Amino acid sequence: MASNAFGTLFRVTTWGESHGEAIGCVVDGAPPRIALTEADIQHDLDRRRPGQSRHTTQRREPDAVKILSGVFQGETTGTPISLVIENQDQRSKDYGEIKDRYRPGHADYTYDAKYGIRDYRGGGRSSARETAMRVAAGAIARKVLARRLGNAFAVRAALVQVGPHRIDRSRWDWAEVERNPFFCPDATAAAAWEGFLDGVRKAGSSAGAVIEVVATGIPAGLGEPVYGKLDADLAAAMMSINAVKGVEIGDGFAAAEIPGHEAADEMRMDGGRPAFLSNHAGGILGGISTGQEVVVRFAVKPTSSILTPRASIDRFGAEVEVVTKGRHDPCVGIRAVPVGEAMMACVLLDHLMRHEAQCGPLRTEDAG
Amino acid sequence: MASNAFGTLFRVTTWGESHGEAIGCVVDGAPPRIALTEADIQHDLDRRRPGQSRHTTQRREPDAVKILSGVFQGETTGTPISLVIENQDQRSKDYGEIKDRYRPGHADYTYDAKYGIRDYRGGGRSSARETAMRVAAGAIARKVLARRLGNAFAVRAALVQVGPHRIDRSRWDWAEVERNPFFCPDATAAAAWEGFLDGVRKAGSSAGAVIEVVATGIPAGLGEPVYGKLDADLAAAMMSINAVKGVEIGDGFAAAEIPGHEAADEMRMDGGRPAFLSNHAGGILGGISTGQEVVVRFAVKPTSSILTPRASIDRFGAEVEVVTKGRHDPCVGIRAVPVGEAMMACVLLDHLMRHEAQCGPLRTEDAG
Amino acid sequence: MASNAFGTLFRVTTWGESHGEAIGCVVDGAPPRIALTEADIQHDLDRRRPGQSRHTTQRREPDAVKILSGVFQGETTGTPISLVIENQDQRSKDYGEIKDRYRPGHADYTYDAKYGIRDYRGGGRSSARETAMRVAAGAIARKVLARRLGNAFAVRAALVQVGPHRIDRSRWDWAEVERNPFFCPDATAAAAWEGFLDGVRKAGSSAGAVIEVVATGIPAGLGEPVYGKLDADLAAAMMSINAVKGVEIGDGFAAAEIPGHEAADEMRMDGGRPAFLSNHAGGILGGISTGQEVVVRFAVKPTSSILTPRASIDRFGAEVEVVTKGRHDPCVGIRAVPVGEAMMACVLLDHLMRHEAQCGPLRTEDAG
Amino acid sequence: MASNAFGTLFRVTTWGESHGEAIGCVVDGAPPRIALTEADIQHDLDRRRPGQSRHTTQRREPDAVKILSGVFQGETTGTPISLVIENQDQRSKDYGEIKDRYRPGHADYTYDAKYGIRDYRGGGRSSARETAMRVAAGAIARKVLARRLGNAFAVRAALVQVGPHRIDRSRWDWAEVERNPFFCPDATAAAAWEGFLDGVRKAGSSAGAVIEVVATGIPAGLGEPVYGKLDADLAAAMMSINAVKGVEIGDGFAAAEIPGHEAADEMRMDGGRPAFLSNHAGGILGGISTGQEVVVRFAVKPTSSILTPRASIDRFGAEVEVVTKGRHDPCVGIRAVPVGEAMMACVLLDHLMRHEAQCGPLRTEDAG
Repeated sequence: MASNAFGTLFRVTTWGESHGEAIGCVVDGAPPRIALTEADIQHDLDRRRPGQSRHTTQRREPDAVKILSGVFQGETTGTPISLVIENQDQRSKDYGEIKDRYRPGHADYTYDAKYGIRDYRGGGRSSARETAMRVAAGAIARKVLARRLGNAFAVRAALVQVGPHRIDRSRWDWAEVERNPFFCPDATAAAAWEGFLDGVRKAGSSAGAVIEVVATGIPAGLGEPVYGKLDADLAAAMMSINAVKGVEIGDGFAAAEIPGHEAADEMRMDGGRPAFLSNHAGGILGGISTGQEVVVRFAVKPTSSILTPRASIDRFGAEVEVVTKGRHDPCVGIRAVPVGEAMMACVLLDHLMRHEAQCGPLRTEDAG
Repeated sequence: MASNAFGTLFRVTTWGESHGEAIGCVVDGAPPRIALTEADIQHDLDRRRPGQSRHTTQRREPDAVKILSGVFQGETTGTPISLVIENQDQRSKDYGEIKDRYRPGHADYTYDAKYGIRDYRGGGRSSARETAMRVAAGAIARKVLARRLGNAFAVRAALVQVGPHRIDRSRWDWAEVERNPFFCPDATAAAAWEGFLDGVRKAGSSAGAVIEVVATGIPAGLGEPVYGKLDADLAAAMMSINAVKGVEIGDGFAAAEIPGHEAADEMRMDGGRPAFLSNHAGGILGGISTGQEVVVRFAVKPTSSILTPRASIDRFGAEVEVVTKGRHDPCVGIRAVPVGEAMMACVLLDHLMRHEAQCGPLRTEDAG
Repeated sequence: MASNAFGTLFRVTTWGESHGEAIGCVVDGAPPRIALTEADIQHDLDRRRPGQSRHTTQRREPDAVKILSGVFQGETTGTPISLVIENQDQRSKDYGEIKDRYRPGHADYTYDAKYGIRDYRGGGRSSARETAMRVAAGAIARKVLARRLGNAFAVRAALVQVGPHRIDRSRWDWAEVERNPFFCPDATAAAAWEGFLDGVRKAGSSAGAVIEVVATGIPAGLGEPVYGKLDADLAAAMMSINAVKGVEIGDGFAAAEIPGHEAADEMRMDGGRPAFLSNHAGGILGGISTGQEVVVRFAVKPTSSILTPRASIDRFGAEVEVVTKGRHDPCVGIRAVPVGEAMMACVLLDHLMRHEAQCGPLRTEDAG
Repeated sequence: MASNAFGTLFRVTTWGESHGEAIGCVVDGAPPRIALTEADIQHDLDRRRPGQSRHTTQRREPDAVKILSGVFQGETTGTPISLVIENQDQRSKDYGEIKDRYRPGHADYTYDAKYGIRDYRGGGRSSARETAMRVAAGAIARKVLARRLGNAFAVRAALVQVGPHRIDRSRWDWAEVERNPFFCPDATAAAAWEGFLDGVRKAGSSAGAVIEVVATGIPAGLGEPVYGKLDADLAAAMMSINAVKGVEIGDGFAAAEIPGHEAADEMRMDGGRPAFLSNHAGGILGGISTGQEVVVRFAVKPTSSILTPRASIDRFGAEVEVVTKGRHDPCVGIRAVPVGEAMMACVLLDHLMRHEAQCGPLRTEDAG
C-alpha cells in the first residue's frame, strides 16, 4: 500500500527503521536542473539532529545523508532522487525487557495488533527517526520553491508553547529562533522554558509543545478544491508527524469563538494590488491560498518514553510495569520544528506543481 | 487533477455547483452484495437538510437522492454507484450585485485568482452544498461498516461548542442529540444556545462551532504508517469540510499541556482482553487504531455570509462594501455534524479495506 | 477501488450499466477557460453511435449528452465536469434466458466469480456501452489539446484490418475514413469488407478488427520514465477497451523480426530542427515522445454475441447452449475507432499536464 | 511525479542510474510475516544477470542485493522493504564520444528534449539495468503469491521468437527453458538460434525477440473493471519494460483474424467445476481472470546499441555518425524473460490484494 509515501506530483517515499541498517527516501517528481548537493540537505538535517542540547535526546547520530541517484553534475535530472542515511548509533542493546512489552503511548501495541509482528528495536518503523527523511525531502522542496518563487519565499517555524507555557506573541522575533535550543521566537519564554524542562526531566516526565509554521511569499491560487485543499493536505501532513494530536490553520479553534463580523478578513487595494486587512484565515480560503502568509499550528503530545513506571501489558497478556530508559527527548516537540517546516515545503511544492499542470504558470507577483 | 475525490479504495468523487443543474458523486470500490436503497441514503441526507429550524438556512431543498448505477435488485454490484440530487431551489436570482465582488471570508477571491473564472451563483463549487454528497457517500460507508463490524459499530457526532459556549461534558447524553436542533448532547447547553443564536442572527452576524465525532466498535489495527495514518487521513477529511479551521484527535491541543506521565494511556487486561485505562490518544497510536473509541473534533468558523457590511474589492480592483443577503446558516457548524460523521465513516471503511488487502481479515473481537 | 477511473491529472471516472437508467462520467482536472458545449462532445459521440449502418448494432440510442457541472457561461471552470447520457432504449426485454447463463467470450462468468452478483441486463457494466463516456471525455481532451498545441495537432484513427483482410497501406487516404461505414482509409478494402461482413452476419458469426490511431503535432518530451511511460499508458488505455487483445506501438510485433541496423530510426537535421528518417518506434523512445507521429494499433476480437449456438454453463453448474439474439455489432471493432482516438487524446493531455507540472511549459515548435 | 512507481497496493518504486552509485527500490504494501531473505531475491536476480553466455552483455555485475528495511528476524513486517544493489562495474570510461550524441533507437534525444539534462553514462535512468529492481520486487511478489495460492501457483516465461525465428509450439517443454541460454522451451529452436545470433553479433547488428509469460494457479476473479482490468495493467507492465513495442493477451492480434464462432472459449463442467474448452482469451474476460492460465506475450525490438554506424545528430545540432561500442546484448530480449515473469507476479499480487480489499478472501479452489 502506498502508505509510506506522500505528495501527488512531488512524491516522497520513505523507508527504514530506527535501529535498522539505514533509513532513506526516494523523491520522485522533482523538477530537473535544480542545483542540489548533499550539503544543501545536510544543513536542514543538522537543525533536527539530536544531542544538540540537554533538552533533546542524547542519541548521537551524525545523520550524514548520501545522494545515490537523480543528481548529475550537481543538478537534478528529473529522475528519482534516492537519499540514504546509515544508522551509526546502533548500540548493541539488550531489548529483552521491552521486546514483548507494549510501552504506553507508543505504537507498540497497535503495530502488533495490525501486523502480528513488529521490529521492537527503538520503535522500529514508528520511531520519530523517520522524520529525518521528511527534513531531507523538505530541503529539496525548499530549493525548488526558492527558485520558482524568488526571494520573498520562506518557510519558517517556531515553538510557541511548551507544556502549559506559551510565548508572548508581542515579543515574536524570528531571529531569536536560531539563538535558543527551543526554536523559540520569544527570548523571555525560552529562558523560562529552560527551567521548566529541567524540572520535567528530573521528575522523569516529559512535556508537550505547540509548533507554528509560517510560509511567506506564497502567491494566491495554490490548493485544489474540494478534497485536495491546501489546508486539508497541510492537516494530513502535520498530523502524520509522530505524536501530533491537533492541527490548526490561521485562528484554528479560536475561530469558533469569534463572531462572524470579526472572523472574515476584509479586503482593500494596496498599491494596486489586493490586500487583506487581517489574516484570521491563515492565508487559505476555500482550500486555496490567498496570497497572504500561510499559517499552520500543530500540537505535539509529551514524549511517551519516560522514567516514571506505567501500567501496561505484554504480548502474552500479562500485566506489567514499563519504564523507558535510554536517551529520549524530554520534549519531542522541539525537534518537530524543522519537521513542520519540511512538511509545509513539500505540500507547497506539490501544490505549485499541481496548479501549473492544470492552470499554467502561477502569477507570482501577488505573493504575500 | 483528482482533487475532487477522496479515499484510496473506497473512493468518492463529487461534482456539482450550488446553483447548477444538479450535484452528485460516484462511489467506486464499494463491496458487492450490500443491501442499499435510496431510502438508506435519504435518511442521512435528511439530517443535514437545511430549513429544519430557524438556526439553519431557510433554503428549501428536498435533496432527493437518486441511484443511477451500481445497485441491482437492491444490492450493490461492486461497480460504481452514481448518486445525483437535482437542484430544485434555483431561484432565478439577480446575482448582479455579487457576481463581480469578492465576499470576505468566502472563496470568491481565491477561485478567481486560481482559475481566472468562477461560477458566482451561490458560491458555485465552493458552496457547502457539496457536503450533501459526502453525507450520501457516508451513508453507504456506514452500511458496509455495520455489516462488517456488527452491532458494536457506530459513528456519532455532536455539537460541543457554539461560539464561545461549550457544553458541560458531564451532562453528555447521546439521546439528547436527536432532540434539539443543534445535535447537542447537553440539554442545558442546547437551551442556552437558542437564545445566543437568536441574538447572533438578529445582530446580522454569525457564530462558529466545534463538532466532536466518535466511532465505536472499531477494532485495533486500522491505519497505515506513516503517511496513511488513520489520524492523518481523518485530519484531511475533516479539514476538507467547508469552513473548518482546526482538527484534533483525542486530547488534541490539550495534550500539549499535560505532563508525560499523565498523557500516555495505561493498559491492563480486562476479561482476557487488552484494555486501556484512559483515552487521551483518541483511539489512535502511531496512526493505527487501538480498539478504543476513535475521537475527532473539528472547529468551524462563523458563516461568512452575514448582513453586516464588510470591506472588500471587486474583480476590477475597486473597493466595495459587501452585504450578503439571502438565506444563510447563522451557524454553519450545526449542519456540519452529519458531515463529520460521514467523513469518519468513509475514512474508516477505506482503512478497513486497506488493512484487509495487506493483512487479511481484521480481527473484530477486540473492538472497543 | 479507483478502478473505474483513468488518467493522473486529467482524470476521468465513468459509471453506469448498459441497461441502467443512465451512463455518465466525471472529468476532473480539465484546465479552466476552455470553451466547451454539449455540441462539442455530441459531435464525437455521434461518430461512435450505433445503428448508422448495417454493420453495427441496430440498437437505437440518441446518446444525447448533458453537461451537469463544471462549465459556466460556455467555458470550463476548472471544477469537475459531470456528463450524463440517459439510456433511452431500455426495451422491456425478457432476460430470463440469459440471466443465469454465462455467454461464452463475455464477462458474465468472471463478474459472477468476482462479485457473486451481476447485472445481467445487456452485459451490465461490462458492456461496450461504457465506451461512450470515453468518447465524451476524449472530446474534452481534444479541445484542450487543440488549444495548447495549435493547428498541427490531430488525433485520428482508422480500421486497418477486418477479420483476416488488411488494407493496402499504399492506398491510405485519411479523407476516405469519413466516407465509408468502416472508418477505412483504403476505399478498395472498404468495398471488399462490405461483402465479407455481410457474409459473416448471414452466417451468424462475427469478425475481429485492427485499429490504428495516429496523433500528429505532438512535441518531443511527453511521457514519464519509467512506469509512467507514454507507451505504457497508451497500452493500458487501449487494452482497457472492450474486446481488445493486443496493442502495438510503431512497428509493434514486427519490430522483433527486423535486424537492429534497420530498426533504430536515424536522425538528421531538417530546416534547423531534429528530424527522424523513419518511424519504426512509433514516435516514442524510452517512453517519451520524439516529436514524430505517435502511432498505436490495437486488435479487437470478434463480437462474442453471435447467433451460432455455443456450449456453456449456467450459474447453477448445468451445461447449456447459448445463442445470443438481439441487436449486436457483427464487427465491434468498427465502433472502436472513435474510442481509440478518445483514449489517445486523454492519455496525451494527461501527459502534457504531467510534463508541465514537472518541467514547465512544453516547447511546441518541434512537434512532428 | 509518481512515475517511477507501479502497482496500487503492492507498490514498487525504483531509482538509480546505470552507472550511478547504486540502484534500488522500495516495496511498499507487502503483507507481513512472509519469510524473506536476500537469497530469495538473489535467486531471481541471478537468472537475469548479464554475462552468463556469449548471447548477453559481458558486463560483469555481481548484482548482490541487500535488504535495508522492512524485514525483521527473517520475516516481512508490513513496512517498506528497501532493496539496494551497488553498481560495481563502473569502468572509468571515457564518455566523451557519446555524451553529446544521441544514439539512434535510444532515449538519449527524448530525455534531453524532456529534461534539458541527462545522465549520459550508459543510458542513465533509461538503461535496462533498472529492470534488475523489477526482478527483485517480483521475487517478493512471488513469495507472497506462493503462500496465498499454494502449490498450483507458478509464473513462468519463455522466449518464443528470436528475430524472425519462432519456436515450434508442439515441442514446448518448460524443463527445456532452464537448459539453454535463451530460456527457449523448444530445444530444436534453441540450437538454431545459437547460429543465428552468432551471425547477428558478427555482423555488428542485433535481433529482437518475443517473450511469453504464463501464470498458472490463478483463481477466477482477479482484475478490476473497467480501467483497472487485469489485462490493461499487464499491458502497461510489459510495455514499460525497456525496448518493448507490443503486448498481447491470449490470441492477441491473431484474435482479429478468426471468426466469432471460433473465438469465444466454450465452457463445460469438469469434476463439478467450471472448465473452459480452449483459452483464446488468455485467461481474462472483461478484464477479470477466468481461472485458466493467464497468457501474455510481448515483443522486444533489437538492441539499439550496435557496431554498425548510424546517422544521428548531437545536442548542438550537428549531424554525426554513431557507433555503440562496449558490452551490449545482441538480443536484449533474452534477459527480458525473467523481467516479464517479475512484472506478471507484481501485477497478480497487486490484483489479489485489490480483490480481497473489496470482495473479501478469494476462493482459490477453482484456480486453473
